[in-house]
Amino acid sequence: MRPSGRKLNEMRSVSIETGVTKHAEGSCLIKMGDTHVLCTATIEDRVPPFIKGSGLGWVTAEYGMLPRSTSSRMRREAATGKQGGRTVEIQRLIGRALRAGVDRVALGERQITIDCDVIQADGGTRCASITGGWVALRLAVDKLMKAGLVTSNPLVDPVAAVSCGIYAGQPVLDLDYPEDSEAGVDGNFIMLASGRLIEVQMSAEGATYSRDQMNQLLDLAEKGVAELVVAQKAAVNA
Amino acid sequence: MRPSGRKLNEMRSVSIETGVTKHAEGSCLIKMGDTHVLCTATIEDRVPPFIKGSGLGWVTAEYGMLPRSTSSRMRREAATGKQGGRTVEIQRLIGRALRAGVDRVALGERQITIDCDVIQADGGTRCASITGGWVALRLAVDKLMKAGLVTSNPLVDPVAAVSCGIYAGQPVLDLDYPEDSEAGVDGNFIMLASGRLIEVQMSAEGATYSRDQMNQLLDLAEKGVAELVVAQKAAVNA
Amino acid sequence: MRPSGRKLNEMRSVSIETGVTKHAEGSCLIKMGDTHVLCTATIEDRVPPFIKGSGLGWVTAEYGMLPRSTSSRMRREAATGKQGGRTVEIQRLIGRALRAGVDRVALGERQITIDCDVIQADGGTRCASITGGWVALRLAVDKLMKAGLVTSNPLVDPVAAVSCGIYAGQPVLDLDYPEDSEAGVDGNFIMLASGRLIEVQMSAEGATYSRDQMNQLLDLAEKGVAELVVAQKAAVNA
Amino acid sequence: MRPSGRKLNEMRSVSIETGVTKHAEGSCLIKMGDTHVLCTATIEDRVPPFIKGSGLGWVTAEYGMLPRSTSSRMRREAATGKQGGRTVEIQRLIGRALRAGVDRVALGERQITIDCDVIQADGGTRCASITGGWVALRLAVDKLMKAGLVTSNPLVDPVAAVSCGIYAGQPVLDLDYPEDSEAGVDGNFIMLASGRLIEVQMSAEGATYSRDQMNQLLDLAEKGVAELVVAQKAAVNA
Amino acid sequence: MRPSGRKLNEMRSVSIETGVTKHAEGSCLIKMGDTHVLCTATIEDRVPPFIKGSGLGWVTAEYGMLPRSTSSRMRREAATGKQGGRTVEIQRLIGRALRAGVDRVALGERQITIDCDVIQADGGTRCASITGGWVALRLAVDKLMKAGLVTSNPLVDPVAAVSCGIYAGQPVLDLDYPEDSEAGVDGNFIMLASGRLIEVQMSAEGATYSRDQMNQLLDLAEKGVAELVVAQKAAVNA
Amino acid sequence: MRPSGRKLNEMRSVSIETGVTKHAEGSCLIKMGDTHVLCTATIEDRVPPFIKGSGLGWVTAEYGMLPRSTSSRMRREAATGKQGGRTVEIQRLIGRALRAGVDRVALGERQITIDCDVIQADGGTRCASITGGWVALRLAVDKLMKAGLVTSNPLVDPVAAVSCGIYAGQPVLDLDYPEDSEAGVDGNFIMLASGRLIEVQMSAEGATYSRDQMNQLLDLAEKGVAELVVAQKAAVNA
Repeated sequence: MRPSGRKLNEMRSVSIETGVTKHAEGSCLIKMGDTHVLCTATIEDRVPPFIKGSGLGWVTAEYGMLPRSTSSRMRREAATGKQGGRTVEIQRLIGRALRAGVDRVALGERQITIDCDVIQADGGTRCASITGGWVALRLAVDKLMKAGLVTSNPLVDPVAAVSCGIYAGQPVLDLDYPEDSEAGVDGNFIMLASGRLIEVQMSAEGATYSRDQMNQLLDLAEKGVAELVVAQKAAVNA
Repeated sequence: MRPSGRKLNEMRSVSIETGVTKHAEGSCLIKMGDTHVLCTATIEDRVPPFIKGSGLGWVTAEYGMLPRSTSSRMRREAATGKQGGRTVEIQRLIGRALRAGVDRVALGERQITIDCDVIQADGGTRCASITGGWVALRLAVDKLMKAGLVTSNPLVDPVAAVSCGIYAGQPVLDLDYPEDSEAGVDGNFIMLASGRLIEVQMSAEGATYSRDQMNQLLDLAEKGVAELVVAQKAAVNA
Repeated sequence: MRPSGRKLNEMRSVSIETGVTKHAEGSCLIKMGDTHVLCTATIEDRVPPFIKGSGLGWVTAEYGMLPRSTSSRMRREAATGKQGGRTVEIQRLIGRALRAGVDRVALGERQITIDCDVIQADGGTRCASITGGWVALRLAVDKLMKAGLVTSNPLVDPVAAVSCGIYAGQPVLDLDYPEDSEAGVDGNFIMLASGRLIEVQMSAEGATYSRDQMNQLLDLAEKGVAELVVAQKAAVNA
Repeated sequence: MRPSGRKLNEMRSVSIETGVTKHAEGSCLIKMGDTHVLCTATIEDRVPPFIKGSGLGWVTAEYGMLPRSTSSRMRREAATGKQGGRTVEIQRLIGRALRAGVDRVALGERQITIDCDVIQADGGTRCASITGGWVALRLAVDKLMKAGLVTSNPLVDPVAAVSCGIYAGQPVLDLDYPEDSEAGVDGNFIMLASGRLIEVQMSAEGATYSRDQMNQLLDLAEKGVAELVVAQKAAVNA
Repeated sequence: MRPSGRKLNEMRSVSIETGVTKHAEGSCLIKMGDTHVLCTATIEDRVPPFIKGSGLGWVTAEYGMLPRSTSSRMRREAATGKQGGRTVEIQRLIGRALRAGVDRVALGERQITIDCDVIQADGGTRCASITGGWVALRLAVDKLMKAGLVTSNPLVDPVAAVSCGIYAGQPVLDLDYPEDSEAGVDGNFIMLASGRLIEVQMSAEGATYSRDQMNQLLDLAEKGVAELVVAQKAAVNA
Repeated sequence: MRPSGRKLNEMRSVSIETGVTKHAEGSCLIKMGDTHVLCTATIEDRVPPFIKGSGLGWVTAEYGMLPRSTSSRMRREAATGKQGGRTVEIQRLIGRALRAGVDRVALGERQITIDCDVIQADGGTRCASITGGWVALRLAVDKLMKAGLVTSNPLVDPVAAVSCGIYAGQPVLDLDYPEDSEAGVDGNFIMLASGRLIEVQMSAEGATYSRDQMNQLLDLAEKGVAELVVAQKAAVNA
């Protein structure tokens, strides 16, 4: 029934390749099916003005799509002269999500910027960015710990994200683009490996949903996140 | 325990005054306690390019805060040269929420723009904008119906929104600013009067939450939205 | 003969309500007939770089129109990405006018920003902004004086402004929108309560005027400003 | 008493050289003492959307200062990314002033753009731009008339402008930069050769003025404009 | 003597992998040593306004660097609000270079946009973009030819580019970043496979050069381009 | 054969008038036939951040065209909101070229900005800007030397630039606009008076060229630069 032939509760194949760029302190290329996102982590000693001198660290994110990551070419945002509303929303979400998994005291007064650049898009780029972004973050923090600059682990539990939605009347896990563009209801679910929730964004376009349906999607999301955490752990220990 | 002395499940006093500007096709000033938002509806015959010729209508929204709506003065976005990320996020949310309650076929090929301008802010401006925005929209649609331009009611069920959060360890309804700035977890809940969900955005900053807590907030939100719908209905029938 | 039925030298009804927002150091809602402008004053300890260390104070202004303050909706300047030429001209005028009535030594090295936001427009918004702006400024300065931060009154004489023009061949006082859009000659007259002039801007579009006509408008303006000053004094003493 | 040694009612030397660029339909370099402005007129067959099909013509203006036209280098507005408030105000004034001297029916549905670029600044650049701009406009219209495209003269009477102010307590004609930067009151007076007024902008910074003083400045301005008109007529007939 | 240990006339290892993104009509990932650029080609039926109706085709290019493609993180141009001068210069060069190798009559009235996005930078990104850009272009044109939309081959001869410079007093081929940042003289040489020149840009910073030196670099460039053409041909025939 | 009737190796008449604006530390109006560029030099004590404290000087340039310097009016870049790609490219080239002729140690930690504003364009504006820019720079440096602020001459050898191209199959010197718009190959050649090369930019649009042709253009350029240097020396010694 799903265009890809997947079962309702079946994720796309996930692969996370680390160390893909030589300059970044942490990096990975995450592939969720045909969605490919390059995530890099940059460590800097400066922090935003509003926490200067607080001893607390900061994690932030930027997101972009290559112009031809999509089926028809998008205008390059650098040429347009500004980041679109969707881009701004997504990068704020990624930053907020990752910070929820960071002990900012343990990190110390430094900033880590996660850049998520979509090489190829097929739905779910924001969730892939969070899941891959955590891996890049983990690798960068590992460098700080190996160098003795950070002594207590600030990343206690992995952060991962997956989208679920109601497609053709059925709750399905990990929407790809053909499903996403048809689904009247879809949500992004961001969790810790422990199952604790960080953020739920569940919205409808031309439809509404019941609390029952919301709970069905949450059940699917828990399954999906558990599988993503396995992939994250394998990647960072590789 | 709440700074305002309200009970955990107690809303701020709500007032919705309609007909507050002479030019707009629909307008109201909504007050949720000290949060005051002016909502106006503008009807135009043109629609965005992507639905031209489809026969479908469109509802969109813009949001702004007056520079001194807040405790310390904010920079005027018109002077800054762009709308900030938070503004863009909020106005996209308002538009999406209101569209979910509109039968776009019945509306016909026209656009209604809801402007939500915050005169005074004390937390919950996006929810007040949605709740008041629906009233302005309803009044504008009433004009179209009286004029015979729209014959079938495109607004079957009111749309309203309320925020809830976990404040000092307790689930509370309708966060005001002192609560909002302290709450580690807060959510915006947008529903139809029927209780069907349109959008849930529940996020944590420096904290996480369980599914149980999520359900407690949803219970509170259902209570709040029911009260808001009463105020909306009273306003549009006044 | 005037669309509103007013006499040639008759002002619209004026009302000035103070204390309309809880955050600003001074505020009022001024109504000149159907023109409604919200004026707020913000006190800050910093001054612009060019007077830093001079001991002198600064008063500046910003002006905006809500998108649906007008008969057909205007584009929101924050969305357009810049303030239009008319906006910039008006806010520079308001700031210059108010500064002319301020003893900047007595004010001391601090800045007061007057925000003038047009809620509903029906002609004469810049004059209403100046007249209402002075009230907000006065209230903010009163706070400084009550707190002992300013000891000598920096606002010796009220500043008020009114527009006059030649409509249907006749000099008329306090143009409303239907008059303003037809008048070939119109002027803005800014004065102290004493009658001393601060700024005269009298321009023609598709017409010219004689010195005699200019003097007739000045006579009208003196009458109008005297009435506005009465309203200002009543408002700040209320 | 004046820094330049001029008498109170003495203009700077005026020179207007025409035909200074080969591409423009009309051009001149106007020198008011050390203030040098290059004015060019461009004829185009299109008009702004709001008069399309009306049969009426349009005259508009743009103004700029070369970065080193001033004593210390100004930032280039093209590099800054926008025209400053002062620039916008001035170019709107120039356009409005010139239009007041144009019979837009006789001009026919075409647009003439006057570009005024300040090569060297020493006070009074906006007045020089209007006076020189009229010459460029006249020359462009002459071309249209010679070509038979315009048959009735749309420029009945020259438009010229001069600044006056109160300097060291005395009313003086044609302020140069050292006077302008000291004068508490200064005005720009735009007139037809006939003496009819087009626009008066008379403002005070840190001072106020009486109606008597205003009349003294108007007297001076009438003298100055008469002299400018002589120079304009000599230039266009050369 | 070279930091990399390469001989003076030795290129970095070159690899060109095609078909790297599923959406683009042509794509490749070109690696010149540690410089990695993703090149995609997009075919569109529209052409720029200045050639509309001419029957001629157009090839254009856009260039960008991922924020962490470099040793320290660069600001994202989409966030900055504009493309920097270097970016604009490079993308204009890429477009001009590729057009020189295209028979625009044979291409027919359509546009091909080459996006060159630097994944990892180590010197020579603009040359890699041209060389890889031609491969993406070739693959896109092949699609048009296979579909019968283009019947005569518009790409007669490959276009390739290489940088050469004077490093430590010696002419060297294919500068990497450590060389590029030290070289007082460096040039970019763009040629057809036939050896005909398309563009030479040879500049000095804090140095100058003789015609003899220029000829030595041209000799090296001819060698380098010949090797690149071999790699291009292998890639497109793979 | 050339539209102007010039011989293949004949320059346009060159004139360089110095001291044309009273504010700049150095200035000239350079005329290459009908191409007229105003060049001014501004000395400032600050340097860009990346060389602060290094003791080294900096020379930079900005370039602009007056809107009606061209045959049809160009949009004013200040109004457009940004400098176009061509402008940015040219001003970077001018700055780089002039720096190549400066001993930055001898100049000392100060910045000289060369503004090149095109009053009238007829091809070759970037070369005229470099040649005239050097004259303005020389005059500014002379002031520093006369004042004893610079003691060792930082400008050892004049920098000049000329364009050459292949027009109607023939190599020609100093392209004017009618030639430039037809030439398939054209180059800009920047040299020291000694004949040492600073920058060569030789590009083809819809054509290619051989090394022989490149050498022919270089021969022409050497002749042209020698003549320009004579004019520069005459101007600065006048």
